[in-house]
Amino acid sequence: MSEREISSAVIRRLPRYYRYLGELLENNVVRISSKELSIRMKVTASQIRQDLNNFGGFGQQGYGYNVEYLHDEIGKILGLDATQNMIIIGAGNLGQALANYDFDRIGFKVIGIFDINPRLEGLAVRGVEIQMVDTLEQFIKDHEIHVATLTVPKKQARSIAKQLETWGIRAIWNFAPTDLHLSEDVCVKNVHLDESLMTLSYNLRHRGKEKYSYKSYMED
Amino acid sequence: MSEREISSAVIRRLPRYYRYLGELLENNVVRISSKELSIRMKVTASQIRQDLNNFGGFGQQGYGYNVEYLHDEIGKILGLDATQNMIIIGAGNLGQALANYDFDRIGFKVIGIFDINPRLEGLAVRGVEIQMVDTLEQFIKDHEIHVATLTVPKKQARSIAKQLETWGIRAIWNFAPTDLHLSEDVCVKNVHLDESLMTLSYNLRHRGKEKYSYKSYMED
Repeated sequence: MSEREISSAVIRRLPRYYRYLGELLENNVVRISSKELSIRMKVTASQIRQDLNNFGGFGQQGYGYNVEYLHDEIGKILGLDATQNMIIIGAGNLGQALANYDFDRIGFKVIGIFDINPRLEGLAVRGVEIQMVDTLEQFIKDHEIHVATLTVPKKQARSIAKQLETWGIRAIWNFAPTDLHLSEDVCVKNVHLDESLMTLSYNLRHRGKEKYSYKSYMED
Repeated sequence: MSEREISSAVIRRLPRYYRYLGELLENNVVRISSKELSIRMKVTASQIRQDLNNFGGFGQQGYGYNVEYLHDEIGKILGLDATQNMIIIGAGNLGQALANYDFDRIGFKVIGIFDINPRLEGLAVRGVEIQMVDTLEQFIKDHEIHVATLTVPKKQARSIAKQLETWGIRAIWNFAPTDLHLSEDVCVKNVHLDESLMTLSYNLRHRGKEKYSYKSYMED
């Protein structure tokens, strides 16, 4: 199988398959047909087959999918089978809220939280003490961190991101409302809350003028 | 112009145009060609023209775009020119972090925060006191609220969302890691943090195996 050809649209859909399969597992469902799965997920069965065929298929004619196997395989494709240490830069409300999240379930362990505000120094969030950013470079190197969550104001985001890159960070989960300009060696996933709310605003205003399709459901 | 035909992909790109035009405005840029805009935004000029043509164009041959006009028009298309009152259900870490956000800038004013935890009752976040959910129905009706942010645990999300629908909510910004099953009268925009982090994980693991294209940049 050639991983080169997998579109970002398919990749963005994988976590939703993973979530539904996880729920089926919790309910002790052993196997499921693509038709049953399609009804639950409100996508077409052919979309499911097409998406999964990108990774070699996993289904058996007349049997369907083995839920546990498919769940584990998608987890491996997503890289959730290994634990990644992660740091959070920006210990404001959002940074602290994210530090309180249980991302361990999906293989991400927050081991450092950093800020520039001395009032926050030493405050512990979920057992991890907030440190000042002047210790950041050393921390990243000592702990060989590759993943950083960025919850700093827009004005600081780009310069901090550039520093993170030089210090060895290879993946940034960016909540700052700006695009980061980094080399292709660094993966960036943006969560632009403003922009998410704006699309909700659009849909509310234009409600009734366009109907939601299965497709838009998947793209949320 | 027919709004029916506008794809959800175009709609998801509008906020990014709005953000870039806002930055140009801040820098006192009066007009910009689609080529200049395309370089800044790292998308093709033809993509920009195609996207904006969905709404009638806005550009003038040989002149380009008037930045303020285009910014305002996209704002209107997104519905940001009117203020919507909004409530937040779930005053945990994430709910409080969102309540502290300044969404007023884009037309959303948080006027109520609700939880079931009596310890949170009366605590003020950005001047808005946390109330208990038993007052929710009355509050929605008294204040004619149409927009709710949902930051409750997965297990409660679906039933609360159904109640919100019966009480008149028409748009839900959903942070619970589950799909809500509501009628087509209710717009839902999901922010699935887990799933966002999973796609970052995928990209980190498969780094180098696929190059990022302009297209994937826009889809983030």
